[in-house]
Amino acid sequence: MGTPELLVALDLAGIFVFAVTGALVAVRLDLDVFGALVLAGVTGLGGGVVRDLLIGAVPPAALADWRYLVVPLVATLLTFYAHAALERREHVISLLDAAGLSLFCVTGALKALDFGLGPLPASLLGLVTGVGGGIARDLLGGRPPQVLRSDVYATPALVAALVAAVGVQVGLWTPAVAVGSVALCLAWRLLAMRRGWNAPRAGRAR
Amino acid sequence: MGTPELLVALDLAGIFVFAVTGALVAVRLDLDVFGALVLAGVTGLGGGVVRDLLIGAVPPAALADWRYLVVPLVATLLTFYAHAALERREHVISLLDAAGLSLFCVTGALKALDFGLGPLPASLLGLVTGVGGGIARDLLGGRPPQVLRSDVYATPALVAALVAAVGVQVGLWTPAVAVGSVALCLAWRLLAMRRGWNAPRAGRAR
Amino acid sequence: MGTPELLVALDLAGIFVFAVTGALVAVRLDLDVFGALVLAGVTGLGGGVVRDLLIGAVPPAALADWRYLVVPLVATLLTFYAHAALERREHVISLLDAAGLSLFCVTGALKALDFGLGPLPASLLGLVTGVGGGIARDLLGGRPPQVLRSDVYATPALVAALVAAVGVQVGLWTPAVAVGSVALCLAWRLLAMRRGWNAPRAGRAR
Repeated sequence: MGTPELLVALDLAGIFVFAVTGALVAVRLDLDVFGALVLAGVTGLGGGVVRDLLIGAVPPAALADWRYLVVPLVATLLTFYAHAALERREHVISLLDAAGLSLFCVTGALKALDFGLGPLPASLLGLVTGVGGGIARDLLGGRPPQVLRSDVYATPALVAALVAAVGVQVGLWTPAVAVGSVALCLAWRLLAMRRGWNAPRAGRAR
Repeated sequence: MGTPELLVALDLAGIFVFAVTGALVAVRLDLDVFGALVLAGVTGLGGGVVRDLLIGAVPPAALADWRYLVVPLVATLLTFYAHAALERREHVISLLDAAGLSLFCVTGALKALDFGLGPLPASLLGLVTGVGGGIARDLLGGRPPQVLRSDVYATPALVAALVAAVGVQVGLWTPAVAVGSVALCLAWRLLAMRRGWNAPRAGRAR
Repeated sequence: MGTPELLVALDLAGIFVFAVTGALVAVRLDLDVFGALVLAGVTGLGGGVVRDLLIGAVPPAALADWRYLVVPLVATLLTFYAHAALERREHVISLLDAAGLSLFCVTGALKALDFGLGPLPASLLGLVTGVGGGIARDLLGGRPPQVLRSDVYATPALVAALVAAVGVQVGLWTPAVAVGSVALCLAWRLLAMRRGWNAPRAGRAR
């Protein structure tokens, strides 16, 4: 599998897990299957569409490539049949969300790099790709946005995106850089969730 | 009236009815006339602006063509004077919203086709055009988004957009295709509203 | 200081005050420092990013110019240390928001003019630049959007943007036009806030 195929595969994996989180939110809201499809599509494709707009890649891949459309459809149908199993484990939305965040921040940064942006703007675009879909899901679903509420959420995504962009920029082997950066973000985020790492607050409530 | 003029006329009609729904939501929220103008403008123009961004048509028609700005202004002022009459009939926001959805999904798809997209991406852009303004209206107005809550909402829009895009692509007479697709979406949506058609839910609440 | 430098300076000043309002909302929501950074960044940069997308200036200045990123960072850190002092005065978010609105509506209009748009579309882009970040802040923070609720909010921004665009178009000295238009919007908005100017409502609640 060549590098572009690997990036598309990681992108599709990210779309799948994010779309499942959108469909699970839809199940919790008792939406019907069409509402769930809309929410899953927005969650899975939203971040990438915003990234493509920001780098001038129009029409976005999400509209031009049929695989990007089939994945949220499959994710929604699977979620509708398997949601009871998915929800047996608490925090399953947060776990899948962490996986999507890790995949998207890296693929987003590498696509932006590919469009000629420098490593810092590219890693910001990775961050936007990673958090965009989840923000749309939470706004549409009437939930407080996870990116604001979860400690240690945007930071792992930004750092992993920067590692990926700099690694590819200095000539390291792209597949290794991509997989390593995804693992870095995922491990960091999962550890933060498990250990309840807290970042400083302004202390207004105290 | 030639084909482009017909599409602009349908587009302006869609902007008008969507802008009225935005102004009615503003009246319900007891906003002043300026707040209502903002909400009507976002509702009427939001979907088309997003479509234009996605196909690379910048600056969007909503900014470059003065007719696109006059219509929400007129719609807001009319709503402020006539809102009591408009609200005499229940579900009036839903009815006007159905008309706007039907007009926009078709004009959006045909504009995207005109910019060189294939029928499937073009019909997705029709869907985005049709639901975009209503989503913005509901988010800004603090209401649950109608596209998620209403049974049988996105599906008629997507199917009508696909019918319109395929019809024009295979060479049928554009005005007939456009009017027929709008009628298809509108009839489907209104029947679904009247009959209370329900799509499957995941059954979590049961 | 030449004209482009003046516009960038006004833009950075607008980003700073808007970012502080975003960080203050974050403090009120008891978010941690990373959540505050996201909210401050979205508030400070959101309007300009949307403007750049609408005029086809991709990648947006907010991603390509490091100064646009340092300012929200500094604003967030300052807010975290000084928020008690900032909140001593009531309505401080509204006051800073008025300053950001005034700065952005003018710089947004002049940047759009620079990209070849006419004065009316350019002033609409000024309005979008001025209100975009605040709308994103209020949606993400779960607050009713200030642009809808505040009497006399969008109008001063639109008029000041139009004055700036027409003034530069007819050949007046840009720095004088820019500073004068910012002052016009700010004075109008502050007077409206102090005097409680009310625009007509539809009277549904009466």
